[in-house]
Parts: sequence; structure tokens; C-alpha cells
Amino acid sequence: MKIAQIAPLAESVPPQFYGGTERIVSYLTEALVDQGHEVTLFASGDSVTRAKLVPITKTALRLNPLVQDPIPYHMMLLDAVRQRADEFDALHFHIDLLHMPMVQDFIGRTVTTLHGRLDLPDLPAFYRAFPDHRLVSISDNQRLPMPPVNWAGTVLHGLPPDLLSPRIDRQDGYLAFLGRISPEKRPDRAIRIAARSGKPLKIAAKIDNVDRGYWESEIAPLLDLYRNIEFIGEINEAQKAEFLGNASALLFPIDWPEPFGLVMIEAMACGTPVIAFRCGSVPEIIDHGVSGFIVNDEDQAVDAVARLDELDRAKVRAAFDARFTADRMAADYVAIYQDLSGARTPAVRLPDRRGKEAELHFQAAG
Amino acid sequence: MKIAQIAPLAESVPPQFYGGTERIVSYLTEALVDQGHEVTLFASGDSVTRAKLVPITKTALRLNPLVQDPIPYHMMLLDAVRQRADEFDALHFHIDLLHMPMVQDFIGRTVTTLHGRLDLPDLPAFYRAFPDHRLVSISDNQRLPMPPVNWAGTVLHGLPPDLLSPRIDRQDGYLAFLGRISPEKRPDRAIRIAARSGKPLKIAAKIDNVDRGYWESEIAPLLDLYRNIEFIGEINEAQKAEFLGNASALLFPIDWPEPFGLVMIEAMACGTPVIAFRCGSVPEIIDHGVSGFIVNDEDQAVDAVARLDELDRAKVRAAFDARFTADRMAADYVAIYQDLSGARTPAVRLPDRRGKEAELHFQAAG
Repeated sequence: MKIAQIAPLAESVPPQFYGGTERIVSYLTEALVDQGHEVTLFASGDSVTRAKLVPITKTALRLNPLVQDPIPYHMMLLDAVRQRADEFDALHFHIDLLHMPMVQDFIGRTVTTLHGRLDLPDLPAFYRAFPDHRLVSISDNQRLPMPPVNWAGTVLHGLPPDLLSPRIDRQDGYLAFLGRISPEKRPDRAIRIAARSGKPLKIAAKIDNVDRGYWESEIAPLLDLYRNIEFIGEINEAQKAEFLGNASALLFPIDWPEPFGLVMIEAMACGTPVIAFRCGSVPEIIDHGVSGFIVNDEDQAVDAVARLDELDRAKVRAAFDARFTADRMAADYVAIYQDLSGARTPAVRLPDRRGKEAELHFQAAG
Repeated sequence: MKIAQIAPLAESVPPQFYGGTERIVSYLTEALVDQGHEVTLFASGDSVTRAKLVPITKTALRLNPLVQDPIPYHMMLLDAVRQRADEFDALHFHIDLLHMPMVQDFIGRTVTTLHGRLDLPDLPAFYRAFPDHRLVSISDNQRLPMPPVNWAGTVLHGLPPDLLSPRIDRQDGYLAFLGRISPEKRPDRAIRIAARSGKPLKIAAKIDNVDRGYWESEIAPLLDLYRNIEFIGEINEAQKAEFLGNASALLFPIDWPEPFGLVMIEAMACGTPVIAFRCGSVPEIIDHGVSGFIVNDEDQAVDAVARLDELDRAKVRAAFDARFTADRMAADYVAIYQDLSGARTPAVRLPDRRGKEAELHFQAAG
């Protein structure tokens, strides 16, 4: 198939630093290329891909200090897509909602993955206004706050199988927390769980400016209070294999409707089980008793730490291989793209009654 | 003509508080209705107009505490416009750039007034990517930082003639400063000019959160330092006639490329001359020696205050009536809309070669 992937411009594809959406777009794009599809990637010019790159900006917006407003660049992105829309069997958008008023001429070949949380007050009215767009959720749980829309499916994220190698035997016996220091990620829970379990905890996390106050008032004091808690700051992709692979478990004590949570499958790829709070996507990702433990509170989490020996790290990795590879993700998306293909029926224009034109086009396309 | 006015949703049309763009859209819309045109206004649902209102949201976004992100609502606005685009001879956008990738199907009937400053680093690359769009500047000076684009004209703003009545005889002898407390508006200059002139100064201004530090460190101390400087805070539209009409002059000591500066013509409508720094749109609005004085520095401004007796307040108002009424503004825009009308040629679709379709449409439309 001829497939367009339309990425946000905040980060390159793949991103140099953080950027979950851009990482997934990259994994998906390369897996589709591997599967023999003709893929065109619309992204920032510093992206690296084996697909055909359409560079919209020279560099990722977040790395360019001259950029004050990302919107104009995304409008340029949309115009570039619009000009070439007829070349593709499927156009896959990863930019949330900016494109929706613009794609009516090719809505039948359009699908949009929603990468963010959907429980925001601005969104229900919006999605009610765009009921025809085919949407993909990244977990079933992500859909809960949404009004009725045209869901094309849930496609769980996947990683290249060789991105993180499993470490079946070695483990240093520490618990790991990886992500952001923020109230909804609950590093405070991780600290108390580790302390009560008598295990060391290593925290690899960035602190965004918005979370600086939370760090200083809530988390930094806990590091003084408890022993064996090590804060190692931000780590890069290359350091993740070591950090996750050497841990006896990843703690994922979230307190918000996490739409996916990539770090869970990163841990699984390393063979590292996940102790996760029942929230958001967690029950769809963790096989309780196989790839980790799903818990409801800190007591259960402490109990789960004590039971980590019951889990087989090889089976954790096998759970990853079964459900969370980029190849599986790409295959899921191809099935969705193929469902779109009726939309290639040419639209009929009626020049004398232009008000009706769009309706006919929708019928042909839908 | 059948005309669509597409307003931002931040404020109602007209706005209840600040909102220069929404005020101009309101004045233009009502003047077009007066001139016999069939006008449809796309705006927030609390807008008040004699045109046909298409309400996009219940209230203006800035008045709704639940609104976190204005973008989804503007996407809904664009979709509403798209669905009805074929009804109009002219579609007049006042939302800067959000619509540009979407209007290609009716670009020949589209015109966009740029209401903001254009010397921002994100904009040149953007406008180079959209060279076909007909743009209107609100002063010639506003165009300076722009790359070559398709200018349809400059249309200076206008006000309803009865919005502010002239006060020819009475004046209380104070100088007036009206607007925002911000570094680019230079209230510090106004304070020094008044002090050196031995005249009282009244400052009617809002202080945005972003300017709170500037107020505290730079301006508040000056109020303690100098006598006869009165800060009266924010005033509403109804209070403007009194505040401006009773002043012997408006000080407009700006230090940035002001794209228009509505307060200058508000003062002129009251018969109040303007002492303005040569910057941005100022030379296009003030007739030096008639409706005010254009100055280059504080010395010249102090000199201008001493020469205010040379100006005739009736002639200040006459300068307003000659060039700055909403009727004149509407007539200028109608001339631009009429220039668009070739675009009603129906577009030709070639269902078998959809890649070429847009080109043919542009030729028919352009």
C-alpha cells in the first residue's frame, strides 16, 4: 500500500530526547517499510527513516529556540499533506485534531491515532462535531470519556524486538521508577513501596519546569527521609536497557488515566516485570501473574514485591514478543488501512450545486 | 453580496471587554448589513449582530473557565465554515492563519485580514508557503517584515461615527494614556512627558499578568516619584468617551511596530488630538499638525504638548470622519470582495486524475 504517516513536528522522528508519539510513528513507519509498503513520512527535516521523508521544517520545533508558536508549522504540514493526498491509499495522522476540518476531500482514506489523554473538557464537543473521522485508540480505556465516534479499532503500541534485549538471569535487585516526576506518576508511592519492601529504588526521571514545585515540596524531602532511594535524573534511550534490564521490577504506581504507558512494555522487553496500579491502560497491558502484578494500593504493591520470585523473566519477555512488537502494531494498522480502501472510489462533483457536492463525496468515501 | 465574516472565538462579537479584532469584525459586519449586504457571522454564541449569526460555542472562550485549549473550538469553526462555503460570494477570515490549509477549495472567494504584528520569527516561512492567499494589512507599515505575498490591499480600521461623540469645547486639561501597561506601550515615557510639561496625566490601563513585574519594578515607582499622575485602572467602552473626550491630548508614546492602534482613532472621534511616537502605523493614521503631532523623542513630545493650542478639535474630528468610519472601512472591503468575484466560476473535477484536480480548481479560481 501507499501510506502517508503524518507526525507532529515537536520532535524529530524518532525523537532525540522525549517524545512518545514521535517514537511510535518511527517504529510504525520502519515496520511498514519492512513489510514492503511504500511509506511517506511527513515530519521535521532532522527525522531519520527508510521511508520517503517529506521534511516540513529543518529541525524539530522543540530544538529550535526561534520557534515561539508551533501552529504555523503544523499548518504548513497540513498543506503539504493536502497537496499530495491523492497519492496515498491511506493517510495516517498522529497530530490529534488539527487536520480534521481539512481532510474532508479524502476523509475516506484518513485515519487518526489519538495519542493523548481524552478526558479533557475541550474534547467531547469537538469530537461530536467530527463524527465521521475514523479514530484509533491506543487502549480501550482511553476511549471512556469520549462521545460516540467512529472508532476503527484499538491498536496497542509496539517496539522493535531488538530495541531492548531481555536480561533473563542477571538482576541487581533494585526497583526502578522511570518517567517524569509529576503528581500523576506518583513517585511518592514508589518511594514508600520500596522503603516498606526493604529494597533499593532507583528513580530515572526528568523534572519539567511545571513540576519543579512538586519535586521540591513533595519528593525531595522523601529522598532525605528514606535510605536506599537513588535519584539518577534523566536517562537516554541507550541507558534504558541497562536501567530497566538490571531491575528486579518496574514500579508503575500511576494515579491518572494513562492512555498507554510505553515504559511498561519497555520493561517487559527487558524481561523485567511490572508492578502497576490498576488505572488507565494497565489491565490491557500487564498479564497479572505473568508479566507483572496489577495492584490497587500500596499494601498490595508491597506484597507484590515480595512475590516477584513467582514470575519468570523469560515469560515476561515472551508476553512482550506475543503482543507488543512493532510488527504486530504495523499489521494491526495495515488491517485498518485495508478497511479504508473502499474510499478510493472517485468522488463525483456537481459543479452547479456545490452545496451538495460534499455530501455525495462523503457517501462515496464512507 | 453574500458575505461570511469569520471571527476568533476568544471574545464575543462585539467583545464584552477587550478584544480589538472582535470589535473590528463587529463594526465591519454591522456596516455591511447597513449597506445592504447579506452577511453571515461565524462567531461565539454570545455575539450580538444584525447579521445572521452562526454560533460555534455557547460563550466566548475567554469567559469560559472550562476552556483549556482554544484550538479544538477553532477547528469546529473551520468545519462549520467549510460546510457552508458554497453559499458565499466572499469569505472573510479574521483568525490569522488557522484556516489556510483548509480553504483551497474556495480560495478564490477567500480573503484574510491580518490583525496582529507580523514581525514574529515563525511567520515568514509560513507565509512563503501560502503565497496564493489574498491578504489584507491593517496598515502599510504592518507589511514590512513579510515576504512577498498576495496583498489585496491595506484597509485601515474604522469606527461607527456615533460610537464616540466629539467634545469640541470642553477639556479638563489633562493628558491621557489608554491601553495596556507594557514595555512596548511605554507608559514611562507618558509619565515623564506629562511631568516635564507640568500637566496632569491620567492613565487608564489594564495590567496583564505577564506585565505585572514590569508594573511593579518600572511604573509604580514613577507614580510615587512624580505628582499629578493618576492611575485609574481598566475602563470600559462606555467610560472611554468621557476619559478621552475630556483630555487635551492622548499620549501614544509607543516603542513597537503597532499594526494599527485603535485608541488613536478613538481619540480623534472625540476630537482629542494625539501625540504619537513615529512608529508602526502612526504616520498613516495621524495627520501631523491636524489630528495631532508625530514626534521622535520625549523632547519633541514635550514641545508638542506646549503647541496643542495650535490644533482645532473640530478638525481632529473631521479627520476622523474623512478616513476612519466603519462605513469607509466596509466600502474598502466590499471593493476587495468584488475583486474576488471571478472566483465564482465553478471548479472542474476530473475524477480519474485527482492529483490534477486542485490545479485546475486554482486556475478557475485565481
